[in-house]
Amino acid sequence: MIVHPVLLDGAWRTSEGATGALRAIDPSDGSALEGRWPVSGAADLERALEAGARASVGLRAASPETLAAFLEDYAAELESYAGAIVAAARRETALPEEPRLKSVEFPRMTAQLRQAAAAARDRSWCQATIDRKAELASRRGALGGPVVIFGPGNFPLAFHALAGGDFAAAIAAGNPVIGKGHPGHPETGRLIAAACLRALERSALPRATAQMFYHCEPELGLRLVADPRVGAFAFTGSRRAGLALKEAAERAGKPAFLELSSVNPVFVLPGALVERAESITQEFTTSCLVAAGQYCTNPGLVVVPGDAGGAAFLEAAARRFGAAEPGVLLGAHAPAQIAASIEALARHGAEVVCGGRALPPPGFRFQNTLLRVSGARFLEHPDALQTEAFGPVSLFVLAAAGNEMIAVARRLEGSLTGTIYSHRDGRDDALRDRIAAELRPRVGRLIDDRMPTGVTLSSAMVHGGRFPAAGHPGFTGVGFPAAMHRFSALECYDHVRPHRLPPELRGPNPTGRMWRLIDGEWTQRDA
Amino acid sequence: MIVHPVLLDGAWRTSEGATGALRAIDPSDGSALEGRWPVSGAADLERALEAGARASVGLRAASPETLAAFLEDYAAELESYAGAIVAAARRETALPEEPRLKSVEFPRMTAQLRQAAAAARDRSWCQATIDRKAELASRRGALGGPVVIFGPGNFPLAFHALAGGDFAAAIAAGNPVIGKGHPGHPETGRLIAAACLRALERSALPRATAQMFYHCEPELGLRLVADPRVGAFAFTGSRRAGLALKEAAERAGKPAFLELSSVNPVFVLPGALVERAESITQEFTTSCLVAAGQYCTNPGLVVVPGDAGGAAFLEAAARRFGAAEPGVLLGAHAPAQIAASIEALARHGAEVVCGGRALPPPGFRFQNTLLRVSGARFLEHPDALQTEAFGPVSLFVLAAAGNEMIAVARRLEGSLTGTIYSHRDGRDDALRDRIAAELRPRVGRLIDDRMPTGVTLSSAMVHGGRFPAAGHPGFTGVGFPAAMHRFSALECYDHVRPHRLPPELRGPNPTGRMWRLIDGEWTQRDA
Repeated sequence: MIVHPVLLDGAWRTSEGATGALRAIDPSDGSALEGRWPVSGAADLERALEAGARASVGLRAASPETLAAFLEDYAAELESYAGAIVAAARRETALPEEPRLKSVEFPRMTAQLRQAAAAARDRSWCQATIDRKAELASRRGALGGPVVIFGPGNFPLAFHALAGGDFAAAIAAGNPVIGKGHPGHPETGRLIAAACLRALERSALPRATAQMFYHCEPELGLRLVADPRVGAFAFTGSRRAGLALKEAAERAGKPAFLELSSVNPVFVLPGALVERAESITQEFTTSCLVAAGQYCTNPGLVVVPGDAGGAAFLEAAARRFGAAEPGVLLGAHAPAQIAASIEALARHGAEVVCGGRALPPPGFRFQNTLLRVSGARFLEHPDALQTEAFGPVSLFVLAAAGNEMIAVARRLEGSLTGTIYSHRDGRDDALRDRIAAELRPRVGRLIDDRMPTGVTLSSAMVHGGRFPAAGHPGFTGVGFPAAMHRFSALECYDHVRPHRLPPELRGPNPTGRMWRLIDGEWTQRDA
Repeated sequence: MIVHPVLLDGAWRTSEGATGALRAIDPSDGSALEGRWPVSGAADLERALEAGARASVGLRAASPETLAAFLEDYAAELESYAGAIVAAARRETALPEEPRLKSVEFPRMTAQLRQAAAAARDRSWCQATIDRKAELASRRGALGGPVVIFGPGNFPLAFHALAGGDFAAAIAAGNPVIGKGHPGHPETGRLIAAACLRALERSALPRATAQMFYHCEPELGLRLVADPRVGAFAFTGSRRAGLALKEAAERAGKPAFLELSSVNPVFVLPGALVERAESITQEFTTSCLVAAGQYCTNPGLVVVPGDAGGAAFLEAAARRFGAAEPGVLLGAHAPAQIAASIEALARHGAEVVCGGRALPPPGFRFQNTLLRVSGARFLEHPDALQTEAFGPVSLFVLAAAGNEMIAVARRLEGSLTGTIYSHRDGRDDALRDRIAAELRPRVGRLIDDRMPTGVTLSSAMVHGGRFPAAGHPGFTGVGFPAAMHRFSALECYDHVRPHRLPPELRGPNPTGRMWRLIDGEWTQRDA
């Protein structure tokens, strides 16, 4: 059976020195899909690094307009192949075609590419700063080496290493990308990479601007992100792998950006339950069970009052969980991993309220599951009781509304999001504000009265947060132009002769509209 | 003899469980100065962390105006004690009072505090972003834990842990500071901290907003920067210590910002030597010997043509080096450290052209020293020949003007700065541009035709660069408001009720002048 080639140095090439081959699985029935995909060895990665380093030099000559035109053409090229890409993603992930893959994730992917293109054209993202008297000027520029992107399993399109938000941001900021696809959806990745190469071939950019391999052994991944030629590293996925890669990259002086899944605490205050328990139950159920719970922002920890209201809320949620069809999980190991997490939670005092077991084949599924624990017990084992179960699982903490809830909030580790539901009439406000004060330094996105799974594409979005959910609190993985800042270096020009400056730092405003900080004033005028 | 107290939790307190006591030395004659200073143990650091964590909660309630008023009052308070502070710094560092300490470094220190205050008042630094339709808003906010700052030995005022640029930036962004003074100038630090405490006592800020200890064992420093209560860590100093602390901090998920010294390459092209060899020799000599060469931006590697012009330039520089009085070094170990670096350079083929030896007591001094090596030899041992000698020392690389110079540039590690001198008439331009292309991704500040030691206080300055000279390429340690970004977290408010938002994210522009990104447009208008 043929082993597919990898996209290296501008062409599809037979993997050199592959250390193995893998097959993709249809998660809905566990059957192996067509095709064998190489597990790349050191030779592939070396080739990618060399070509990526050369491409990063070539990219310095590319104008923002050229970068933007490529991103836009690429988005259109993907759209020409939308049917095939969505079908492949459906087969490889069992995520529903409608509405998820076709009407939500695919358009999100192309919208991100176009938003990145618009931000590149606009140029304001680079924070051009000019001090005429001191003859100094600075801006954000490309990193000078390829950005290595490890894509996740749970968003085969919108977070794909060669088409997702990280990719769009890295390219728009002028960096080449070396993408590691996810072994769960190689055919999806192949179709995406093929569209990318076609768009690259039509562009004026170096062909090695985007490269992709499918998989490698963990040890090689650690070497890759720490290579001196690398500019930065971005990862979306599991905590264990993400933190190991972060350490390797940072030890070598490479910026590392992670969006790891987290428990995303949700606090439901007493007044909110009085006012609208049923609608909150419904919102929670939808949010927790979407895509079988496999969202980074899945609400995995719900803190409710330890009284009759909280108990009734949990009971109602359990009824809905029991009535909902368990979704298909992404990987063969997922059911066992969820079971292990539930076991860890149970060992520390959590009781299963509903679900709790893997479902028999065909396919990879787990019962929709709720657990409960008292606030007091949670405070005895706060770390263990934040063990994430990546699936349709949530742990309810029944805590006394007041100081015990606040104490729970104080023991939470870093998450992407934190949510508080309160009564509209203000009766919960004092408690809400005290909990919010605890959550604020622990999360990237603080939410009132809605569930965390909606990560809107907006310049005001922050998809990031605090360690260990994110690698650095100053950055976001979603939202343009801010996402581009991750893949940029501050570069200063001191006394550099005007004709040698990049266009953004010369006198005339290069677009007529770009915002610059000139002699202390933000302006669209010429310098 | 009395052991001085430390500034912890809002008061001067006897060090608890100190692991030793140190004395400061007058570097000009090696004599011990008055006073004994505690080497803090775990108890002091624990107290600082607890108080710092509480202060970071208190600081969330402080308005930018309150932060700014404190910084301005503190600057004025320092000025009231300028005479004593400068005198102490002179005794402890042997840096000249005029012009250095009194007329350059002291005003720089107070100017930074005032610039940070102005940036805090202006609020535009926080990059408030509002998306009204999505009901999302984000800004940069404080980190939620104290910033730990390790101050350097070579700038007792302008980079002091409790008064320098890092301090000003951290406070202006709303973070408390735990400063580690430098053991080389404890009395200077005591006077600075005393002024700080007086200003804090007059302010509405938590008294533990600024704390200071003098020294601790390295192992405790590693524990301190990795403590869960810490918000971030900033370090200016030696590479060995800085990289060890960076690794400890980052492994614990703490952002680490370093400005380490580096060789700061200077390329002098053939035309520039034809045009103005003498003035460049003079600029180089002044830059390399200022403060006995103990600047982070000291030009420690000079690449000149390997022809008669380059040889004459080196000869002229050596004459000036020989004629200049060797300055006093900061520490007792400095002469031996410089000698060891020179030995390492010599082992890899560098020859001493002038100087090369430590000077006999009294005081800590080293001969003004130049070394030379051929371009070919440099390319054989590029890493070893970038060994930094922190003092009045520079290594000349005599390389063929053209590809060999470019090859040298290509083997340079990350530096704070990179400089190229070229002829005004453009004859060097082709070579200059090729070298600049190599330097750009290796340095934070690229300089034409002037020496790197002038680090102007400007919004367009970048004092940072590439690993291993800096911890992260996206940040600067000098220049407001950009320096504040290091000590901030991106915080998003999703569907949060308007009255609960921070003022920067509500409808009305809080200052009437602050710049915000509202629905995709940069504006000073209300939202």
